[in-house]
Amino acid sequence: MEPFFEIRHSDPSCSARTGTLTLPHGPVSTPVFMPVGTNGTVKAVTVDDLVSIGFEIILSNTYHLYLRPGMDVISAARGLHPFMNWQRNILTDSGGFQVFSLAPFRKIRDEGVEFRSHIDGSTHRLSPEGVVEIQAVLGSDIQMQLDVCTKWGISYKESLEAVTITSDWLTRAKKTWEEKADNGYRGKLFSIVQGNFYKDLREKSAALAIEADTPGIAIGGLSVGEGEEVFLEYLAYTAVLLPRGKPRYVMGIGTPQYILAAIEQGIDMFDCVLPTRTGRTGRVFTHRGDISIKRADREFDFGPIDPQCDCKVCRQYSRAYMRHLFKTQEILCSMLASYHNLYFLHNLVKDARRAIEEDRFLSFKEDFLKEYMGGAE
Amino acid sequence: MEPFFEIRHSDPSCSARTGTLTLPHGPVSTPVFMPVGTNGTVKAVTVDDLVSIGFEIILSNTYHLYLRPGMDVISAARGLHPFMNWQRNILTDSGGFQVFSLAPFRKIRDEGVEFRSHIDGSTHRLSPEGVVEIQAVLGSDIQMQLDVCTKWGISYKESLEAVTITSDWLTRAKKTWEEKADNGYRGKLFSIVQGNFYKDLREKSAALAIEADTPGIAIGGLSVGEGEEVFLEYLAYTAVLLPRGKPRYVMGIGTPQYILAAIEQGIDMFDCVLPTRTGRTGRVFTHRGDISIKRADREFDFGPIDPQCDCKVCRQYSRAYMRHLFKTQEILCSMLASYHNLYFLHNLVKDARRAIEEDRFLSFKEDFLKEYMGGAE
Repeated sequence: MEPFFEIRHSDPSCSARTGTLTLPHGPVSTPVFMPVGTNGTVKAVTVDDLVSIGFEIILSNTYHLYLRPGMDVISAARGLHPFMNWQRNILTDSGGFQVFSLAPFRKIRDEGVEFRSHIDGSTHRLSPEGVVEIQAVLGSDIQMQLDVCTKWGISYKESLEAVTITSDWLTRAKKTWEEKADNGYRGKLFSIVQGNFYKDLREKSAALAIEADTPGIAIGGLSVGEGEEVFLEYLAYTAVLLPRGKPRYVMGIGTPQYILAAIEQGIDMFDCVLPTRTGRTGRVFTHRGDISIKRADREFDFGPIDPQCDCKVCRQYSRAYMRHLFKTQEILCSMLASYHNLYFLHNLVKDARRAIEEDRFLSFKEDFLKEYMGGAE
Repeated sequence: MEPFFEIRHSDPSCSARTGTLTLPHGPVSTPVFMPVGTNGTVKAVTVDDLVSIGFEIILSNTYHLYLRPGMDVISAARGLHPFMNWQRNILTDSGGFQVFSLAPFRKIRDEGVEFRSHIDGSTHRLSPEGVVEIQAVLGSDIQMQLDVCTKWGISYKESLEAVTITSDWLTRAKKTWEEKADNGYRGKLFSIVQGNFYKDLREKSAALAIEADTPGIAIGGLSVGEGEEVFLEYLAYTAVLLPRGKPRYVMGIGTPQYILAAIEQGIDMFDCVLPTRTGRTGRVFTHRGDISIKRADREFDFGPIDPQCDCKVCRQYSRAYMRHLFKTQEILCSMLASYHNLYFLHNLVKDARRAIEEDRFLSFKEDFLKEYMGGAE
């Protein structure tokens, strides 16, 4: 059997490395940015386009799919891949983050979490075991344990409790996952390191996650309201605690700055709604910083969104046309901006992989950010 | 010089015929259904998809483009084709219909029409000459004269006035168009027959249009609130008044029944927002009638939208998935439903062309409608 994760090359000047995840729906080159398809669709982008950009894995949200269309529908469809017509890999989160961020009411008990749906107020219970089973029904290639995600600014005591419960839930999740694997389920389970912004709790949570020995480990509880300096400090602090031989995943980051910082710290996987969400509001990435397509001075700007981008949107459409589509609230604006933003991030990470292979990641990062942070029009 | 319109084949059992329009952006096989791209985009569909379906001509709306982005932007873009990245033909309407249906205020004078924008209330004037010039700036391959469109149910006197003004405006439009053509503009001008639901006025208006001898003639003022029987009666009555050698265009029809009825009467061109507009509300065409994708009993329906359709949406996605996308208000639902509906109509008309070439249009129409009208689920 092929190993699940192989490191291909490490850049000697930092922790950045390239690798390959071997998953049920094909190999995934790392570092990898995963687009988010919350409801079983990456918003405003077709799967044909995702394939043509080159994505090998996307993320979908267990919480949303569990509520709509519901597991009975997904089960009858024989899983999320055929349901949404995506033949490549899917990582699903556990729903924990959404329970904490979206549900109008939730209560954590030892046995799991009880919450009300943000859609219709109905009451639901998710247990660490149940969440593994749900993700097995989804057919997730990588699934996440149920965890307790905490916000920036909570007390040490609360953070410690969250770490303890997360670790307990991990043990139970792993047991269920092993049973599922014995019965033919081929998806991999990832643990999640919590610990808020307390270094000893990060250490404790990392040690517990490492002890559980899941195929991969995620760093949770970052990008939850803290500033960039704190984010970078805790990212670096936590990343170095994790075993070199396992894939490391940081959840919810999607700006070029954060992605490159994560790669530098040896992070292999990341996801974010940012490229599609900001695309729908008329913000688009360029090599000289992200710009607003709706600004009045784009009216006669017949150049491409990003002159350095070779995506089909930049080859075919002007900023003036994009602005017109935005002003007239045309769906095509969301379609084109989302496509471009995903292409941009995919290629940023692809360029980063090449730079790592050529032992020049740090200079690549510096050059990219110099232009990106300094050049916005 | 190639003739603008050539009849290729006439079905001996009715007035249906196939032909070819030779236009600046390539040939167009007729009968032809033209998708509507109001704001310079067929809503929720890319130009790549329009090309892959096979559309050779689309329609865009002068009124909307004149207001947004405005003629200064289109002019700076060197026309609508490069602005929207559509390399094939474009027919533009005159804006007359929108002035009557959208503007909160309008006043018809001999010199033209004054109206307030439905977007910001600003006051504008359009003259028959100005509308020709606007459409020349757009670079329209076929442009329509400014006309006075009337609703179902108005008096004979008002209808006569509309016919008289429409004819006067045609004379003036043609003069300007000839000047434009002398200066290199290659688009064709179509006249419009009005006359409301008074047969002698239809005759009068047709005679005036024929006398003006434009490259093509449109039948306006149908599908404006009258019932199907009246529509069919006046369609047949007016169509037969028009010269056989010129392309005939009926504006604003998009249901399979109306399209096939128009083809039977020898109509060569039609357009409608219907396939994209109803697509966005979750209504989709099938060979057994149009269906609502949002109905509860689609929840576990894993078959394609239309088992008889070979479009990429029907090959890739289920009704259950489409329903889920609709319920979660995902943009992809509009994208897929619009694509399918356009593909369906394009192929209906393509099948009709083949049936005409094989002298079996009437039986094709009967077979199609028998299943379409009788089989809805």
